[in-house]
Amino acid sequence: MNKGVCAPKGFKAAGVYCGIRKNKTKKDLGLIYSERMCSAACVYTQNKVQCAPIAVTRENVADGRARALICNSGIANACAAGGLDAARGMCLYVAEALGISAADVVVASTGVIGPSIPMEAVRKGIPVLVEKLSAEGGEDFSSAIMTTDTFAKQVSVSFEAGGVTCMMGGTAKGSGMIAPNMATMLAFITTDAALDPAVLQIALNAAVQSSFNMISVDGDTSTNDMLTVLANGAAGNKLIEDVSGADFRNFFNALGIVCAELSKMLAKDGEGATKLIEVRVSGAENIKSARILAKSVVDSNLVKAAMFGADANWGRVLCALGYSGAEFDPFGVSVSFKSAAGEIQVCEGGAGIAFDEDKAKKILLEDEVKILVSVGRGEGAAVAWGCDLTYDYVKINGDYRT
Amino acid sequence: MNKGVCAPKGFKAAGVYCGIRKNKTKKDLGLIYSERMCSAACVYTQNKVQCAPIAVTRENVADGRARALICNSGIANACAAGGLDAARGMCLYVAEALGISAADVVVASTGVIGPSIPMEAVRKGIPVLVEKLSAEGGEDFSSAIMTTDTFAKQVSVSFEAGGVTCMMGGTAKGSGMIAPNMATMLAFITTDAALDPAVLQIALNAAVQSSFNMISVDGDTSTNDMLTVLANGAAGNKLIEDVSGADFRNFFNALGIVCAELSKMLAKDGEGATKLIEVRVSGAENIKSARILAKSVVDSNLVKAAMFGADANWGRVLCALGYSGAEFDPFGVSVSFKSAAGEIQVCEGGAGIAFDEDKAKKILLEDEVKILVSVGRGEGAAVAWGCDLTYDYVKINGDYRT
Repeated sequence: MNKGVCAPKGFKAAGVYCGIRKNKTKKDLGLIYSERMCSAACVYTQNKVQCAPIAVTRENVADGRARALICNSGIANACAAGGLDAARGMCLYVAEALGISAADVVVASTGVIGPSIPMEAVRKGIPVLVEKLSAEGGEDFSSAIMTTDTFAKQVSVSFEAGGVTCMMGGTAKGSGMIAPNMATMLAFITTDAALDPAVLQIALNAAVQSSFNMISVDGDTSTNDMLTVLANGAAGNKLIEDVSGADFRNFFNALGIVCAELSKMLAKDGEGATKLIEVRVSGAENIKSARILAKSVVDSNLVKAAMFGADANWGRVLCALGYSGAEFDPFGVSVSFKSAAGEIQVCEGGAGIAFDEDKAKKILLEDEVKILVSVGRGEGAAVAWGCDLTYDYVKINGDYRT
Repeated sequence: MNKGVCAPKGFKAAGVYCGIRKNKTKKDLGLIYSERMCSAACVYTQNKVQCAPIAVTRENVADGRARALICNSGIANACAAGGLDAARGMCLYVAEALGISAADVVVASTGVIGPSIPMEAVRKGIPVLVEKLSAEGGEDFSSAIMTTDTFAKQVSVSFEAGGVTCMMGGTAKGSGMIAPNMATMLAFITTDAALDPAVLQIALNAAVQSSFNMISVDGDTSTNDMLTVLANGAAGNKLIEDVSGADFRNFFNALGIVCAELSKMLAKDGEGATKLIEVRVSGAENIKSARILAKSVVDSNLVKAAMFGADANWGRVLCALGYSGAEFDPFGVSVSFKSAAGEIQVCEGGAGIAFDEDKAKKILLEDEVKILVSVGRGEGAAVAWGCDLTYDYVKINGDYRT
């Protein structure tokens, strides 16, 4: 079993049902705890409408330190009466039960926007949660933060720092990945490496650019999106104090892998999705253009619906490139589809080329499909991940609250 | 019967099946002809990838004059081999059959991106089309340009200019209205008023801002979107040469009505749509912010899916406002839902308020629903139109080409 956020030394986790949800069979409250103080770094939604837990977490990690993380599912605690008090209350209950400071607690929520969190249920649930804390609790935590996710998302990797083997673990929850205005995305990453908080924040900011941001998590985001990294130093490596040197590089590589793997899991588990779509753009003017182009294709409803239908409708790919806003030569575009069933080119020089429809169909029927786009001879390349647009997406979102 | 583009004096139209489509029961070629030379104004897609007909039309209306308009459905003539030759050929065949100059012909196409137009079928079809030209042909033309539209869209209004009663008629075809990356939108408007071409273009540019652009036709558009106005002066009014004075005001009001009516028809007939959604934003800093906010809500998949499910999930409205990029105070937002079944407020001061779910459901089950949003005390107001996200949208776009 993947230990997820409990893979690194000194971290415990747990998940319980405390009564926030109507459905008693689904956990709704999760806790991560570190035996020692952690360096903490966070990135948040850029949505102007932000949930109360983000406001409280901003206060609590302003000093770059945290020891515990509480997260509920079922209610987003956004646009809710008494939201700030509820978020602060959650931190306070955790602090009392663990004997730490409330200012060292990170708080996150996901679920329906509007309703208020039933604090009595949370107050009673937190001691139970603390009681259940264990180094085997990663899976329980992961399932406690799920909303419409169909599987718990966990990953862990090891890396070397100062001659010491360090571990990094992560978990995430999705997300109607179908469009930038997705449901809440939450991701929590733990490591037993020792890092300066400022260095940790720099690494996190850079890592999200090529991972979570390429599944539209930043800029166009829900009211609750949040990504937190906790580093407790239990591995005993020499403190990583700057971004030069092999130790930082190894840590940063590991962070990149964890972020990319979680991002792909989120995309693959997009609401109602039947397949993972990976869009690879090359030959763009620069990496910024490449990212805009790749995201425009992966966000296109018409492309997503065509992928659901295994329809090699490459014209919609060109259309999405065209309205992305990025500069490129329409007559320099080539497009191929690729999967476990093979690869087929369908467009060259911005125009269609004859191709075997049956072979294309076979390729697009796989559950992981790559759309390979070259827009010229530039150096810019980027990868974006998404999923197809299906009947189930409509069903799930047609009446999410009931 | 609404005479549409034939409502104004001196215009004839026709529509036939010529063999561009496989399905012989659906017309695929339409023609509008004016007995006298017209002032012509056009707006085009801002997509970087543009179809050949747009390139040719730009050349032909550069002098602000046109007498005929040819449009096919079934094939977009975009990213197609020999596209420019095909578009020029269509103009040439029309010119020969009508005895006019090919430089006075507007050409448009809509359909699948990639394939080339079967010119032999078009060459044979155009004389038949010219033979069928009649002042009763507006309906035939409207049906000939349809793709996934479920009904032909026509409108006509009258207005006064220089003591003369002038007519204006219009038709349009949609559009997967579900997202900015919609299918092709084409609109053609005729009037027997006499206007200077420059004045006509100014009026058109202004009119689209509060109509077609509010259903996401500009900026984020298909490769083929195009809107053309032809004014032939058959009404005998004094030439409208500038934008001051009552004559221009009356013309501009009529143009605004025609554009708004066609826009609403397009939204209501969005692919798979079961209802028209009208988003009214008020209290914004300025009209630009109001438009951004209204479009962000009407473009939100999560809002669209909620409307399909008649689910009063107002949190998704706030979410869409929040990521729109426009400035506003999240704590100054109020939201109400309104339809023939009544009106209900669900959000005030950026937070939820208690409301009767059954009443909300009844309101949202109507086939025309208004989402009323106030974001503060500013002067900026705007209206955007869209439709719900349904199973049928996915079905239609899952395998559009077959």
